[in-house]
Amino acid sequence: MQYFNNNLFADADTPYQDARYVIFGVPFDGTTSFMAGTRDGPDAIRKVSYNFEQFLPEFGYTLSEAGIHDLGNLEVASVPEDVISAVEEITCQIRKDGKIPIVLGGEHSITLGSYRAFSSECFVVCDAHLDLREEFGNTPYNHACITRRVNEAGAKETFIIGARSGTEEEYEFAKNLNLYSADCVRERGITDILDEISRKIAGRSVYLSIDADAIDCCLTPGLGTPEPFGITHFDVRDVIRRIGPLAEAFDYMEVCPIDAGQTAAVAAKLIREFIAAHQIKNEK
Amino acid sequence: MQYFNNNLFADADTPYQDARYVIFGVPFDGTTSFMAGTRDGPDAIRKVSYNFEQFLPEFGYTLSEAGIHDLGNLEVASVPEDVISAVEEITCQIRKDGKIPIVLGGEHSITLGSYRAFSSECFVVCDAHLDLREEFGNTPYNHACITRRVNEAGAKETFIIGARSGTEEEYEFAKNLNLYSADCVRERGITDILDEISRKIAGRSVYLSIDADAIDCCLTPGLGTPEPFGITHFDVRDVIRRIGPLAEAFDYMEVCPIDAGQTAAVAAKLIREFIAAHQIKNEK
Amino acid sequence: MQYFNNNLFADADTPYQDARYVIFGVPFDGTTSFMAGTRDGPDAIRKVSYNFEQFLPEFGYTLSEAGIHDLGNLEVASVPEDVISAVEEITCQIRKDGKIPIVLGGEHSITLGSYRAFSSECFVVCDAHLDLREEFGNTPYNHACITRRVNEAGAKETFIIGARSGTEEEYEFAKNLNLYSADCVRERGITDILDEISRKIAGRSVYLSIDADAIDCCLTPGLGTPEPFGITHFDVRDVIRRIGPLAEAFDYMEVCPIDAGQTAAVAAKLIREFIAAHQIKNEK
Amino acid sequence: MQYFNNNLFADADTPYQDARYVIFGVPFDGTTSFMAGTRDGPDAIRKVSYNFEQFLPEFGYTLSEAGIHDLGNLEVASVPEDVISAVEEITCQIRKDGKIPIVLGGEHSITLGSYRAFSSECFVVCDAHLDLREEFGNTPYNHACITRRVNEAGAKETFIIGARSGTEEEYEFAKNLNLYSADCVRERGITDILDEISRKIAGRSVYLSIDADAIDCCLTPGLGTPEPFGITHFDVRDVIRRIGPLAEAFDYMEVCPIDAGQTAAVAAKLIREFIAAHQIKNEK
Amino acid sequence: MQYFNNNLFADADTPYQDARYVIFGVPFDGTTSFMAGTRDGPDAIRKVSYNFEQFLPEFGYTLSEAGIHDLGNLEVASVPEDVISAVEEITCQIRKDGKIPIVLGGEHSITLGSYRAFSSECFVVCDAHLDLREEFGNTPYNHACITRRVNEAGAKETFIIGARSGTEEEYEFAKNLNLYSADCVRERGITDILDEISRKIAGRSVYLSIDADAIDCCLTPGLGTPEPFGITHFDVRDVIRRIGPLAEAFDYMEVCPIDAGQTAAVAAKLIREFIAAHQIKNEK
Amino acid sequence: MQYFNNNLFADADTPYQDARYVIFGVPFDGTTSFMAGTRDGPDAIRKVSYNFEQFLPEFGYTLSEAGIHDLGNLEVASVPEDVISAVEEITCQIRKDGKIPIVLGGEHSITLGSYRAFSSECFVVCDAHLDLREEFGNTPYNHACITRRVNEAGAKETFIIGARSGTEEEYEFAKNLNLYSADCVRERGITDILDEISRKIAGRSVYLSIDADAIDCCLTPGLGTPEPFGITHFDVRDVIRRIGPLAEAFDYMEVCPIDAGQTAAVAAKLIREFIAAHQIKNEK
Ligand SMILES: [Mn+2]
Ligand SMILES: [Mn+2]
Ligand SMILES: [Mn+2]
Ligand SMILES: [Mn+2]
Ligand SMILES: [Mn+2]
Ligand SMILES: [Mn+2]
Ligand SMILES: [Mn+2]
Ligand SMILES: [Mn+2]
Ligand SMILES: [Mn+2]
Ligand SMILES: [Mn+2]
Ligand SMILES: [Mn+2]
Ligand SMILES: [Mn+2]
Repeated sequence: MQYFNNNLFADADTPYQDARYVIFGVPFDGTTSFMAGTRDGPDAIRKVSYNFEQFLPEFGYTLSEAGIHDLGNLEVASVPEDVISAVEEITCQIRKDGKIPIVLGGEHSITLGSYRAFSSECFVVCDAHLDLREEFGNTPYNHACITRRVNEAGAKETFIIGARSGTEEEYEFAKNLNLYSADCVRERGITDILDEISRKIAGRSVYLSIDADAIDCCLTPGLGTPEPFGITHFDVRDVIRRIGPLAEAFDYMEVCPIDAGQTAAVAAKLIREFIAAHQIKNEK
Repeated sequence: MQYFNNNLFADADTPYQDARYVIFGVPFDGTTSFMAGTRDGPDAIRKVSYNFEQFLPEFGYTLSEAGIHDLGNLEVASVPEDVISAVEEITCQIRKDGKIPIVLGGEHSITLGSYRAFSSECFVVCDAHLDLREEFGNTPYNHACITRRVNEAGAKETFIIGARSGTEEEYEFAKNLNLYSADCVRERGITDILDEISRKIAGRSVYLSIDADAIDCCLTPGLGTPEPFGITHFDVRDVIRRIGPLAEAFDYMEVCPIDAGQTAAVAAKLIREFIAAHQIKNEK
Repeated sequence: MQYFNNNLFADADTPYQDARYVIFGVPFDGTTSFMAGTRDGPDAIRKVSYNFEQFLPEFGYTLSEAGIHDLGNLEVASVPEDVISAVEEITCQIRKDGKIPIVLGGEHSITLGSYRAFSSECFVVCDAHLDLREEFGNTPYNHACITRRVNEAGAKETFIIGARSGTEEEYEFAKNLNLYSADCVRERGITDILDEISRKIAGRSVYLSIDADAIDCCLTPGLGTPEPFGITHFDVRDVIRRIGPLAEAFDYMEVCPIDAGQTAAVAAKLIREFIAAHQIKNEK
Repeated sequence: MQYFNNNLFADADTPYQDARYVIFGVPFDGTTSFMAGTRDGPDAIRKVSYNFEQFLPEFGYTLSEAGIHDLGNLEVASVPEDVISAVEEITCQIRKDGKIPIVLGGEHSITLGSYRAFSSECFVVCDAHLDLREEFGNTPYNHACITRRVNEAGAKETFIIGARSGTEEEYEFAKNLNLYSADCVRERGITDILDEISRKIAGRSVYLSIDADAIDCCLTPGLGTPEPFGITHFDVRDVIRRIGPLAEAFDYMEVCPIDAGQTAAVAAKLIREFIAAHQIKNEK
Repeated sequence: MQYFNNNLFADADTPYQDARYVIFGVPFDGTTSFMAGTRDGPDAIRKVSYNFEQFLPEFGYTLSEAGIHDLGNLEVASVPEDVISAVEEITCQIRKDGKIPIVLGGEHSITLGSYRAFSSECFVVCDAHLDLREEFGNTPYNHACITRRVNEAGAKETFIIGARSGTEEEYEFAKNLNLYSADCVRERGITDILDEISRKIAGRSVYLSIDADAIDCCLTPGLGTPEPFGITHFDVRDVIRRIGPLAEAFDYMEVCPIDAGQTAAVAAKLIREFIAAHQIKNEK
Repeated sequence: MQYFNNNLFADADTPYQDARYVIFGVPFDGTTSFMAGTRDGPDAIRKVSYNFEQFLPEFGYTLSEAGIHDLGNLEVASVPEDVISAVEEITCQIRKDGKIPIVLGGEHSITLGSYRAFSSECFVVCDAHLDLREEFGNTPYNHACITRRVNEAGAKETFIIGARSGTEEEYEFAKNLNLYSADCVRERGITDILDEISRKIAGRSVYLSIDADAIDCCLTPGLGTPEPFGITHFDVRDVIRRIGPLAEAFDYMEVCPIDAGQTAAVAAKLIREFIAAHQIKNEK
């Protein structure tokens, strides 16, 4: 019979029980402060994922071997804490089943749910924003507070890469974290910084979170809270190639598909790179 | 010196203390279920308001005489109950100051705040949806519950015009209300229905709420939850010309400016008609 | 565990074997003459289908009872005859399994494939175009030839509703068919025409095909070959309510989602109406 | 050798010297008050003109016989009076050569140039706006003044169809003209009004100008100054079928292609109807 | 009472009399040669300004201390010389009141008005275009002539950074100016060039004008006359950080918000950097 | 008389018989796998070509001297082999007439037609994709097979610049070709690679083909099959400046104008650079 495409992530052809990587989307943007639309991020990433080949020439690796399952999009409530709890619940199940979750956002607050399922010792996040506020918009579960919440939820060491925006209080708080600003990445080079981060991780468990706005909005403008003067998609690729294989969970958040598709294309490509890099380092 | 345009509603040149009509926007769409973007409704309505003449030929009336003030957009929280409370607070003030509030949405849940400031005996709403759910998305303050909440908040008689969507339970609940479906409007004609509604109001106080999706989405597609097979903008104009002058408060909600501007243009024009019709009947 | 949305048609929750209605999309627009993009029609229709309630008040019917399955999108080739053959193959299987196919286009040439699986005696089509050309763009499988091809494939009687465009030769050929032009529908009224069509069908088997461009492009502009001065979505609703229950197969083609979503919204709503009307008349 | 499409109006295949109808575009929108973009109107109309068949079934007429030439787009200056003079110069030439000009706008002020080349006794204009201001934006050549300027340039009798916007002074001035407001068209019906206009024209020379915003912006929202509550495209079609054959010059202005293409589609279709209707009445 | 957002530039909370920096917009694009829409630049810049934090980490500076007032948008005429005169008048007043004007365009011709109010000895402009024409589109006030006009109006020394487009005559004229082409910036590096410019300014008065198209249109495509192969937003940031503190007036022109928002985001961010850098160097 | 713009490539003012460079567009995208719309590429490139000056300062050259003719757009069939044959036929004629063809795509498969007219010994192509498949979508004429087809059609030596996508089989096949991946260009620098290619060409005949997706989709996102992590527009400019003058035929394919115009702007600018560089090296 004919072959049908089910609108899920390309090459996510493995049944849940046999899969190593489990993708799900969280189409929630209820606390977004500037521009709504990250709810459409997961499906935009899925759609453009069909644009890419199964074969990754830099890795000599074919993605259809990886064992990927895509659960679809979580049905979301209107209230952020309910969404975060639902994400935690499903991620816990994925962890219990011995699989690696890949969460597609949606707004960054969602990361708290998937982080809680792991409470990894190290939290590595690429983000234009510090996301270290105590609360915002009358709720501590706003996307502008997520790295603060993750810290409170147990991260022993936090690495923020590409940041260039925060309040004075957030910058004060960040002094206790490892902050590599966008200007710092440009000056030192991403390789040097990744050497340092790898050393500091020192074998501890890692959660890796990509906020799409880490990348300069002149390169990828499909964002809910765009910031220019950021790092490049090449920098984030290096982060994923180096830190990805160390991670027990991964998310890619805040894609807001209002551009010509480039922001989702970078996301889909980097998620594919994450799987390939992770699989090669960990399984072979 | 030069004349500057301040991006507020056209002809809203009267200082607050002298104004008869007080406009404010509520750029909140946190519980929107389908398409985000009604947060941009208030400013889209304001922008296109400059497209229209001060003079309304059907009324022989010049809007600059009306005494209009525009407060701008309320700074909104992420949580619907907080937004609703803030709307209630400002609307109470406007009422206390003896003025008529005109609220620009934003999602329909906001109406609960401005209604509470008046607790009008009659609630007249144009809407594609019954909005009579007990709760939705884990919150009773979802925009799909607003007419139910208004009923609980004290409306003695509710008139829903143009509805064509609801659950079986909502239709059950609606049996206690005055429901004029879109098909009913087409069959009976809006004039006949407005005669009936006017009779039933019988001099009691009225809150008039327009959900932009009452109008067929083939005519005005800039909507968060579009429904075809609706009533026309001519029908809503008749509602505003007949019921508007009876109202002590007015809102126009759910404009989501993703179209070529026609939905906001209808909104701006009808808000101007509301002011003219209300002023002529009440002040002169 | 959490509930996930799989990006398929809303309420298509029934497994294939238990389903009465089987939806599939054909994202093909390779022969489109004017504006590409109908390949995105099936997913646009699916997305907006979640905007609608399960309960249809006019029918007092809840769609989740209907038994709907959505196969997803057929993987398509670049060559129209290959696509048409693949559509025929899958539709034959659906027919053999005793189910009603609902095909989402994609361009109108696809209809030939699903028609061939039934060779219904009567072909009822709403279309702005006669689609009666011998060939176009060097191929007989162009979307501008589809009603001609269906005729050659065995339709004994063809009813074209809403047409307003064709060559002189096509109008010559149409003299042997039942042609109700858009102007004719406006003058006689759709009810009178549907009475006549029902009489002429006289119990014979029916294939019902909706080309979205039958509706005036001022109402639903998301079209590959837009034509103004057409029939309304109310007219097509009447066609579906009357002829739908008589049909053994149904398709909705040529939605090109370049507008604010209204064309896909009408399609999704009418597909839901088709299922409800068909189910009520045939199963109860 | 191969056939090439030259991006000019469809079926405009006749050399200038042999043509009966001469199209040219004026991509100027320098005085537009609300939304820029009518400069893109002429090419949008040309592009969608290829979407339509050469054969017009209502007329039994094939447009390729008409003798149409398209000069392309006039190179425009930044200053309105210079643009108007250039339009006058080229239109004079077309008139001297015994041909009918068809001007594609661009903003309505351009009409003054082509009108001056004819100084027709009657000026029939479909427009949402009276366009009767003395001056606007510091210039008498603003598009909001065009019908006033045409009056001063010699029109003995002016017929405005579909208007619903103007200042009090403009409405005062309009008392000396024949004004059929949009509401009036809805009440009396366009046929009755066209009977009256035809009687009043009484064989005198006619210039016919269509401002695209005469049509309700809910039907055709691609406009520089959109107005809801207008007449329909069917009304304008009737105007063109009745008054078109009497005209010695014709223009279609103010298409601003920011919508899904429906406004340009209506324009292209109506220009084709103008040619067919004019040719049939005058040449055969 | 509640806090309202008035749609003006973020943090422009200081009353005029107390302000040090006075922003105003000039929504004029009447002479734009290629793509209309820079009239929407000022409001697009204002809107995205709310996306940024008050705190600028590189400066350790909080913008709410700066003393900023936003007058709104100047009401503009249709004729460029009238617009330029109005800009001159209001800028003179701002200068007389001892404040720094920040003009938001709108097209580049507007700069002539604000320059005339200062007649600064040095004119530093980032632009893809030389803007040195004698006249264009029949007017010497076209945006393609602005640097020529500024020269005639008294600039003793002109520095053009990032240019890559002009006529042969303009390049001839430019030999008397300081021209740093985009290729030159890439080769020498912006720091070296800024050292040279600073030396040449030698304490004289400076007007700083940014034409948004100086930046490569692959980075910021929201432009009326886009040019690839330009300088980067990092280069312009360096210009503003070095030359900004020396300037007595500043403008940011030609943002045409047809992209995903990145061009306006860069503009808003750089205007904020201008204020911070200027304030820190001059006031502290 | 007035000057008219005919919507063809800017400065293409030379009659065919006198022209040295002959442009034509092929608005075909029938086999495009991901995103339709490259059919609109040729006209988008033409439109933005008017945005650029005739004078190219880097060359000290005025393009109006070059002798350029633009035939317009080829009328295309629905079937790729028919389109390719038509392209071959017209390109053969251009070659026979001693002129240089410049083909504007449309999809990359079109290149086979123009290549066949020359059967150049060397084929230099910038492309994100290897395009070396045996067949795709059931046809060997798919755009994903074009470099393979060109190889079979006689190219002795093939140089692929900027590739980063292909199947394992394509990478196997590519071992016999000269492949300079995007990463390789970044590492070695384009100058070094162009030195090597120039040496290898060694005076043999060259066909130069630019697939717009060679450039990183973060820089130029208007593409049918976007790929991030590509080469830059500066790299392609260097290719054109170095290899362009050696070419006997040139094409620029796969521009899909869904972005803010930057992809077409780069294309138009580079086509102008091709003509200038070619003319200067070959004619002077
Ligand atoms: Mn974040
Ligand atoms: Mn962020
Ligand atoms: Mn509602
Ligand atoms: Mn509603
Ligand atoms: Mn059809
Ligand atoms: Mn059709
Ligand atoms: Mn007008
Ligand atoms: Mn008008
Ligand atoms: Mn400039
Ligand atoms: Mn410039
Ligand atoms: Mn290619
Ligand atoms: Mn490619």
